[in-house]
Amino acid sequence: MNQKERTNDNSNAQDPYRFQRKALQVPDAQALVSQYVSRGDKMTETLPLEQSDGRVLATDISAPHPYPTFRRSGMDGYAIFSSDTEKCSGGETVWLKVIDNIPCGVVSEHEITSGFAARIMTGAQVPDGADAVVMLEMTERKTEGSTEWIGVKKVIEKHKNITPIGLELQGGEVILKKGRRIGPGEISVLATFGVHEVEVMRKPLVGIFSTGTELLDIREELQPGKIRNSNTHMLAAQIREAGAEPVVMDAIPDDINVARQKVEEALERYDIVVTTGGVSVGDFDIMGDLVRNGSMKMLFNKVTMRPGSVTTAAVQHDKLLFALSGNPGACFVGFLLFVRPTIRQMLGMEEIYLKEWVVELGTDYTRVNNFTRFVRGRLEVADGRVVAIPAQLDESNVMITIKDSSCLIVIPPELKGAVAGQKVKVLLLPGAVS
Amino acid sequence: MNQKERTNDNSNAQDPYRFQRKALQVPDAQALVSQYVSRGDKMTETLPLEQSDGRVLATDISAPHPYPTFRRSGMDGYAIFSSDTEKCSGGETVWLKVIDNIPCGVVSEHEITSGFAARIMTGAQVPDGADAVVMLEMTERKTEGSTEWIGVKKVIEKHKNITPIGLELQGGEVILKKGRRIGPGEISVLATFGVHEVEVMRKPLVGIFSTGTELLDIREELQPGKIRNSNTHMLAAQIREAGAEPVVMDAIPDDINVARQKVEEALERYDIVVTTGGVSVGDFDIMGDLVRNGSMKMLFNKVTMRPGSVTTAAVQHDKLLFALSGNPGACFVGFLLFVRPTIRQMLGMEEIYLKEWVVELGTDYTRVNNFTRFVRGRLEVADGRVVAIPAQLDESNVMITIKDSSCLIVIPPELKGAVAGQKVKVLLLPGAVS
Repeated sequence: MNQKERTNDNSNAQDPYRFQRKALQVPDAQALVSQYVSRGDKMTETLPLEQSDGRVLATDISAPHPYPTFRRSGMDGYAIFSSDTEKCSGGETVWLKVIDNIPCGVVSEHEITSGFAARIMTGAQVPDGADAVVMLEMTERKTEGSTEWIGVKKVIEKHKNITPIGLELQGGEVILKKGRRIGPGEISVLATFGVHEVEVMRKPLVGIFSTGTELLDIREELQPGKIRNSNTHMLAAQIREAGAEPVVMDAIPDDINVARQKVEEALERYDIVVTTGGVSVGDFDIMGDLVRNGSMKMLFNKVTMRPGSVTTAAVQHDKLLFALSGNPGACFVGFLLFVRPTIRQMLGMEEIYLKEWVVELGTDYTRVNNFTRFVRGRLEVADGRVVAIPAQLDESNVMITIKDSSCLIVIPPELKGAVAGQKVKVLLLPGAVS
Repeated sequence: MNQKERTNDNSNAQDPYRFQRKALQVPDAQALVSQYVSRGDKMTETLPLEQSDGRVLATDISAPHPYPTFRRSGMDGYAIFSSDTEKCSGGETVWLKVIDNIPCGVVSEHEITSGFAARIMTGAQVPDGADAVVMLEMTERKTEGSTEWIGVKKVIEKHKNITPIGLELQGGEVILKKGRRIGPGEISVLATFGVHEVEVMRKPLVGIFSTGTELLDIREELQPGKIRNSNTHMLAAQIREAGAEPVVMDAIPDDINVARQKVEEALERYDIVVTTGGVSVGDFDIMGDLVRNGSMKMLFNKVTMRPGSVTTAAVQHDKLLFALSGNPGACFVGFLLFVRPTIRQMLGMEEIYLKEWVVELGTDYTRVNNFTRFVRGRLEVADGRVVAIPAQLDESNVMITIKDSSCLIVIPPELKGAVAGQKVKVLLLPGAVS
């Protein structure tokens, strides 16, 4: 395509509409998107517990029984009748006859009565009658013929070293709520209760398009004036972290009809469609044209934020399309503020937005304008205080500082620059601090 | 197995060795393990960038070229010769003749000289001669025949809206160091530089055994006195988070010879072997016997920590064996303090231990003894201060609070209980706060 054709093509450049986008505040834009999140058909699937790591529960899980299910010994030692040890207060050693040896997993056939004891292991079921366990290290032992005795020198309180039935959970109690992401702690609980199959939310499928003839594949040699397509791959990783499955599509060409067809096919096939690039004013603005002239309902095409003010969202047949900026920094932020919450809402998660903290600003930040700015930064903790340090380069077209960021520092438009020590709101990036 | 046999089997119960384990401090035990971490053969593999998410770089990556590679327009607008606008300081509108239209990815054949301008898009290469870009919104336009003119009313500074070559990175600079885990930000950078194949560390294979005849499979019905095997599944999830691949083995039976054979086979086959259970004093102590009587070199079998004081580590032919407590809380902590750092060291990561913060204690914690206690807790941030709140139930045999914890609060033995408001050290759990 030569320069002349380009110029003619660019008939929208004077379209006054482009300069009159109605800008929404970020929370309003988020709330609007949230109204259109549809959870679609075939929402859930059942997986063996072993494969459920990282997935999101589709149902509440209740305890089928109390836990512990039996009176459990908390120590290696002897199960005793605690009142036998009252005499020890006078310095006397009390001798008890050992009538059983109870390993884990075995139920004793003996009842412990006054004068008797049973050797018991940590985690084993305390025998009937016994109301305390004395630690092995606190006893002495002697053998008379085939009879074993233990000596106790200290008063042992009733219930000592016995974990009561239901200490952790009562039967019927909700263990885990739907919408909870499964990690090691959740797996421990589910396994404990024998929940070996779990109903989890199906991972939403997210189709990703890039737009722009300037984009080279990552396998191509660099060419003058061109850049490699990095956003598609970054988005795929972000989509995985959010709990969904990315599907990377071929780039959309600069032809409105082909673009429409591709996007509509993707909206048929996937739960969400995300595009990157093609949303700036004065650009070829393929996504803008598509949303304006297509069958889609536009939710917004401008948000009062930097970077990413041109972030666009539209809906068609209950499917959401997000057209993110082609600038890496803006694409990154646009995903986190709009697409990630959508994925998490589809998964039924309770907290869908990035976690907010109020922290101290570590260094001055002077760059402000009339939009709220989401400045990449990193968090440091010293002496109980959390400090956020803005990245040196935080322009929307900068990608290098994305990898070193653990938060977005929210600089409201009304601030005349923010100074070190001032309290600021930060949004934590996924995996921010560990 | 009947009670009598059990009693006879338990010949080690009086072994004085059990009461004389030499306890190491946690940092000393960690340092000792660290000396024996062997990185084995076939350390690395090469993956397409698209599959490298979550993996760890095996080599430093340097920038093959500066970035940006060309003078890049930061705005949609017009590339100009900035000194032309000096006249605007007097209120005059300067008219410039538009001689080109430069979309992204295209290199202009024109040089901009005084009196001329070129329409340019965000991200496109600034034409030779031009030294500033004026925003589209700051211009007016007129057409005379086939000639387009733009009017500029404000002085535009030299370099305005032009990102210089190499702003983000110079050619040859190290972009990412080996040992770095790959996430969205790293992928963005690697894609930008055309690194479409990455050499990553092979995931260590970690064999997991449980021990204990009291353990039911998670698919089994509950039986009196028995519990289900939850640790194996919890460990598998923890191993995945740490960056390794778990291999779950059948439980080890209470037979020292079979146990030795199984463990030795696993040590042949896997990079690390982890067992859970069978390490308590007075227990059948299968792992203790194995380490004492086998060909393994024991590194330690007691650590001055709660929970998990019986945590054991041994080495055989450069392979590490960790015998963790069977108590869920102790197993969880033992993994995080010893096994996770081993995996991360094998992966060549720089920070192998849990991240430490000093924060405020949110509520009193009165339970102390002569060992350092790692108390499960959660972190809260308000008004720039981080507060750690200990879990209500933090006994080593409690599993229910693992899932709700975001940190381990370190309570040193010398403290006579810790009071709310006091500064404490916490170790952040993986994925702690996002």
